[in-house]
Amino acid sequence: MTAESSPLTIAQLAELAGVSTATVSKVVNGRSEVSSETRAAVEELIRRHGYRRQRRRSTGAALVELVFHALEGDYPVEITKGVARVASAHELTVVVSDLRGDPSAGDAWLEGVLRRRPSGVIAVFSGLTETQHEQLTRREVPLVLLDPADAPARTIPSVGAGNWNGGLTATRHLLELGHRRIAIITGPDSALSSRARLDGYRTALDLAGVPVDPELTDRGDFLIEGGLAAAHRLLRLPDPPTAIFAANDGQAIGVYHAAHQLGLRIPADLSVIGFDDMPSVRWAIPPLTTIRQPLGQMAAAATELLLKLARGEPPAHNRVELATELVVRESTAPPA
Amino acid sequence: MTAESSPLTIAQLAELAGVSTATVSKVVNGRSEVSSETRAAVEELIRRHGYRRQRRRSTGAALVELVFHALEGDYPVEITKGVARVASAHELTVVVSDLRGDPSAGDAWLEGVLRRRPSGVIAVFSGLTETQHEQLTRREVPLVLLDPADAPARTIPSVGAGNWNGGLTATRHLLELGHRRIAIITGPDSALSSRARLDGYRTALDLAGVPVDPELTDRGDFLIEGGLAAAHRLLRLPDPPTAIFAANDGQAIGVYHAAHQLGLRIPADLSVIGFDDMPSVRWAIPPLTTIRQPLGQMAAAATELLLKLARGEPPAHNRVELATELVVRESTAPPA
Repeated sequence: MTAESSPLTIAQLAELAGVSTATVSKVVNGRSEVSSETRAAVEELIRRHGYRRQRRRSTGAALVELVFHALEGDYPVEITKGVARVASAHELTVVVSDLRGDPSAGDAWLEGVLRRRPSGVIAVFSGLTETQHEQLTRREVPLVLLDPADAPARTIPSVGAGNWNGGLTATRHLLELGHRRIAIITGPDSALSSRARLDGYRTALDLAGVPVDPELTDRGDFLIEGGLAAAHRLLRLPDPPTAIFAANDGQAIGVYHAAHQLGLRIPADLSVIGFDDMPSVRWAIPPLTTIRQPLGQMAAAATELLLKLARGEPPAHNRVELATELVVRESTAPPA
Repeated sequence: MTAESSPLTIAQLAELAGVSTATVSKVVNGRSEVSSETRAAVEELIRRHGYRRQRRRSTGAALVELVFHALEGDYPVEITKGVARVASAHELTVVVSDLRGDPSAGDAWLEGVLRRRPSGVIAVFSGLTETQHEQLTRREVPLVLLDPADAPARTIPSVGAGNWNGGLTATRHLLELGHRRIAIITGPDSALSSRARLDGYRTALDLAGVPVDPELTDRGDFLIEGGLAAAHRLLRLPDPPTAIFAANDGQAIGVYHAAHQLGLRIPADLSVIGFDDMPSVRWAIPPLTTIRQPLGQMAAAATELLLKLARGEPPAHNRVELATELVVRESTAPPA
């Protein structure tokens, strides 16, 4: 994958491939009106030699591409605000795209990105494939992952939260209140953030000498519905939990509903702690105790990192984790 | 304000003003490196003769500018999704800007817009001034207002919801349940949508022969906090209401908190109806009865309208209102 020589310009690529500069330009800009053979030949040359990008046209606006796996809930609002704050300070324009949770939407999106030639891309949670990552890299479009669902390749910088530590802190808070039957509702297995929170939970129990009961681990989908279903299963166990750690705030709201339906009072009969600290959960009844994930700051840090990459500077750290924080409100109390 | 002749090109404007085409170009593109005298002279010529815009440069992406008065809550998510859906079908790129509720942020934003030369602008709720509207019009950047806070000039197309009818429907729902002491918590006076909802409330009472008691009209700020404070005032009246119509969902959640603090059960002791149908209120406890405002459809309609304007077609209607709809959930019931 390393270039065999210094990167080539469009003119040099055209000469080597025996095609016009317009054709090479179409390939590097992701346009579709090129035969697949020609495209493959040019792509191969770029793979071998690298491609030296033309200077940005002076009339164009410098764009930051912000792409969401799915626009849902208030999570995208917090992130967009954080990106927009840094972008406007640097006279950057923020382009927002929604992949609508559709794995096939990435290719059309990528074609647009290559045409727009942004200063860089911030992919949130990310539904992008390795191949799509590589295409961006090959065209020298800097890429930063924000709160990535899975472990990024070592070469892709990412910004996340201290998920393991958050899981540890949430569980310790419940232990300190005196709970011993503590359940967890994780997110989907595909989300590494969810795995890290689960591991933090297990370690907290282990350090406190409380055995980990596999019956008390259930799985949700990071949505209210999944939290509701899992809480019903947990609360109907012969020896039900006195506290539930929901691995995100949406699932915690699902637990509220299950408790309400079963006539359990929060926190008198059941303690609940969430993860994220979305603006709305301050207004749940009772206000939700949760682990604050600083989404706005994470988004700002990702944008700063992207600007560094766009200036050609290497990132100081390839993986930045911002600390999470316990926010105690009214949904947790000592067990009855 | 009408042009005295056919619109002029940059070259013609430069000749008339006795300056270079580069200078005229700077003025029409909103750049700052021009003396204020020269700017005024060129602006005056454009005002008198009009300005014929150059064809869009072929390499640039076609942009839709979506500008929010403030990125808060899940309202921006619903709107961005609606705009993105139509935009991606037309290979348009969505640029999102956040004015952060700051009246002075509009000028810097406008300068960026004029530089980016988008296909058009969708201003949501809108913190833009008449002057800023005029600058867009003069530079031939189509503008559509979405859910405008105040009455747009007759020449600016807008998309909104049937607010008056929604207010009427909400109040009729409470009347049909048997309520007579029905309070309303309006939004800020500056928001025409709030005034329309209030008028619908009054008319529903009037048609039902229920006198409008001025004590039962209170004002919020479209935020949870404002609804909470107003509900406390209303519920402490000597003859308190048995039902409250909150003019948006955020305020309705504030009413939930006031009721909770005062030990009132919803809906047994107090019926509550909101306005908007934000995704989160389906998950309030109890789930909120509300008036659905089709934000996603409104956003899609605004984008379609903008595309029409960008193609140079006149809009079929200058003001489009999409119908609101009563969504009955569990926060309303007959009075005790």
